[in-house]
Amino acid sequence: MCPALLMASFRTVKGFRDFFPEECALRNYIFDTWRSVARRYGFVEYEAPVVESTDLYRKKSGDEITAQLFCFQDKAEREISLRPEVTPSLARMATTRHRDYKKPIKWFQIGSCFRYEEPQEGRTREFIQFNADILGDASQGTDAELVALAIDVMLAFGISKEDFVIRLSNRQIWTDFLKDKGIAEEHGSAFLQIIDKIERAKPEETAQKLTAIGLTLDEVRSFMTSTDGDHPAFAALRADLTARGLWPYVKIDASIVRGLAYYTGTVFEVFDLKHGLRAVAGGGRYDKLCALMSDGHVDMPAAGFAMGDVVLGILLSKTPGAQMGITEYLNAQQGVDAYVVIADEAQRGHALAAVQALRSANVRVDFSFGSQKVGKQFQAAENQKARLAIVFGGEYPQVTIKNLVSRSQELIAIEDLVSTVKTELAKPITGHLIA
Amino acid sequence: MCPALLMASFRTVKGFRDFFPEECALRNYIFDTWRSVARRYGFVEYEAPVVESTDLYRKKSGDEITAQLFCFQDKAEREISLRPEVTPSLARMATTRHRDYKKPIKWFQIGSCFRYEEPQEGRTREFIQFNADILGDASQGTDAELVALAIDVMLAFGISKEDFVIRLSNRQIWTDFLKDKGIAEEHGSAFLQIIDKIERAKPEETAQKLTAIGLTLDEVRSFMTSTDGDHPAFAALRADLTARGLWPYVKIDASIVRGLAYYTGTVFEVFDLKHGLRAVAGGGRYDKLCALMSDGHVDMPAAGFAMGDVVLGILLSKTPGAQMGITEYLNAQQGVDAYVVIADEAQRGHALAAVQALRSANVRVDFSFGSQKVGKQFQAAENQKARLAIVFGGEYPQVTIKNLVSRSQELIAIEDLVSTVKTELAKPITGHLIA
Repeated sequence: MCPALLMASFRTVKGFRDFFPEECALRNYIFDTWRSVARRYGFVEYEAPVVESTDLYRKKSGDEITAQLFCFQDKAEREISLRPEVTPSLARMATTRHRDYKKPIKWFQIGSCFRYEEPQEGRTREFIQFNADILGDASQGTDAELVALAIDVMLAFGISKEDFVIRLSNRQIWTDFLKDKGIAEEHGSAFLQIIDKIERAKPEETAQKLTAIGLTLDEVRSFMTSTDGDHPAFAALRADLTARGLWPYVKIDASIVRGLAYYTGTVFEVFDLKHGLRAVAGGGRYDKLCALMSDGHVDMPAAGFAMGDVVLGILLSKTPGAQMGITEYLNAQQGVDAYVVIADEAQRGHALAAVQALRSANVRVDFSFGSQKVGKQFQAAENQKARLAIVFGGEYPQVTIKNLVSRSQELIAIEDLVSTVKTELAKPITGHLIA
Repeated sequence: MCPALLMASFRTVKGFRDFFPEECALRNYIFDTWRSVARRYGFVEYEAPVVESTDLYRKKSGDEITAQLFCFQDKAEREISLRPEVTPSLARMATTRHRDYKKPIKWFQIGSCFRYEEPQEGRTREFIQFNADILGDASQGTDAELVALAIDVMLAFGISKEDFVIRLSNRQIWTDFLKDKGIAEEHGSAFLQIIDKIERAKPEETAQKLTAIGLTLDEVRSFMTSTDGDHPAFAALRADLTARGLWPYVKIDASIVRGLAYYTGTVFEVFDLKHGLRAVAGGGRYDKLCALMSDGHVDMPAAGFAMGDVVLGILLSKTPGAQMGITEYLNAQQGVDAYVVIADEAQRGHALAAVQALRSANVRVDFSFGSQKVGKQFQAAENQKARLAIVFGGEYPQVTIKNLVSRSQELIAIEDLVSTVKTELAKPITGHLIA
């Protein structure tokens, strides 16, 4: 057979990923970590459809968004899209039923999003996002809660203070800056676009664009340099995060404005410090979005952030401190607790009854469906990382329990099987797995 | 404001569902139950992309499948589809990398599938499936393992023997029947289609169709009635499930043939016994699919089943015995462990430090971001189902811990907070929640 040919005939669609068991386990580790930290913070989980009306994204971001949308006409000629992000769905859901929930609403979500852009390192066309949002509270206490959550998520992954930083700013400081300089409000969005690109663009080009709206690169640069944690725009946020012991994770960076999107106040991004990767997460305050999405019916302040699985996964693979948590999780999740070895086929019926009894007692058990040599069955037990082998042979109604880690073994009566297995599994693991 | 108007401007696309927190929690309960029973059986989790090449589905099921496909052209004119099921992706993945995994491969998956059909009770356009498959073992031990898994999943949901049944058959018995009657093989697929519809179609029509291929309704009916667990096609399966104590959950039903699909041997469906719902799950043996999908390169026997969340959800809501598990799960998942009440705003900094310390110790904590009356904060604690309230007031560095269930309270030193909270939370709950 020819794997190359096979791959050519059926492979994933460009930018989409298979999750074979090893990758799926890592994905589940990421999900479980997101979920458990969000719950510690009192967030509750929601989910939105993967497909929404294309209008929902047009309304939020204007027509230009459709360049990166997976958008289609369905058979009834509806314009629909695979969601590129979850915030518009959140705004739709929360504004429709906001009266049913106490404020502030603290909601999180985990699921696939889709962008039609060229796949490259850190970018796939299907990716998974963790979204955390707080609606109905306009205070910087909300912003602090979200920044703290982002920090604690990173720490929960074993990514430490030496490995990442929160780059934080507030759009309001630029609004104030423009007002101070007497620049007309209409230039605001073009200006933010220049700031957003200032680190990557050529200085001459940036200078030229700034001149066009009546500013010099020097005055912008000097304002950026002078903006630090002492700026009053950060006062409440700083006091809060300082009390939590988390301010040392933050670096004020006025170049963070989060593109052209809908942010109104605090904005932040999570960056790794050692590998120059894209942002791991980003978000901020978007107080006008609910009003926009509900045609002014529900004016609800809001803030939130999203973290994707792709850049995070690269960072996890590059961070030694993150590996232990992954290994521990995979060991706990993969494999089985016990493998039933049928040494004598005449005992298969009894062995099956035992398999059923053990599984009903919530023990993870596997066994061979067909007749196999005992050695092969022990090999399978090892492949499955089983801690125990339970051997059904001529001694029945007695069976042998072998502890494949401690190498101890004992012959017990079948009626003691479940309780003995439970006791063995409750013991701490010592020694190396053998089989 | 006008919710009706709002709904009209932005709602979910037809056939798609929002999962507000209550619904998302129920969804997570279903996921966790699927996952934990599958793991007990030694299955490991995988995931496939939500989008695949449309050819993948054409190859498996022929052109007629596209009537119910969400299929599109992407911007590069690729024919792509939202997956209607996961088995073709599984076959693609498993045949491509089958050498990397020991046989039998026991894999499960949980994720969204999409069908473009008219939404009605038990059918949505986006639904979630649990798929469990075993590849690389042709024995009826595999079939028994899958039937047992399906039964144990139902039992884990609190759906008991009085509530559901496995309707089981084997396609081979019909192949043998046709051979006995001297019917040409080419009529096989038309014949199975007639059998598949025999319960719903008018007897005259069925009789007419059967006559056209040389059979009478009477001989088909009498064969169906005479086919029971004694038929040799079920011998190994029956012995296995009897040893496990699970045969009483099975009813032989020769009318089960699973439509026109790709099944080759054992086929089964899970039906509720009280409410006349659609099948909760269905599956069987499909030994030829891997060879078909890999152009004959990988000929691997296989069997599996799928269970959707929609019919299952209806059945759960109609089954009193299923409610306790749901309630217990929701109570454990929703809400927080402790609510920090800031009685004196001057203590907010200390309160925030305590929130951070408790969350770092994996305690689920919430608090108010802004200044609020103490009564309102206790109200919030109740809304969040908090077991403990921790009051920061003038007594600091002492704080009051109120147990909102037992109504007891004590004043403790701040340095004892985390350990005291952990001890309180470890106690069993007695009494009713008050706040």
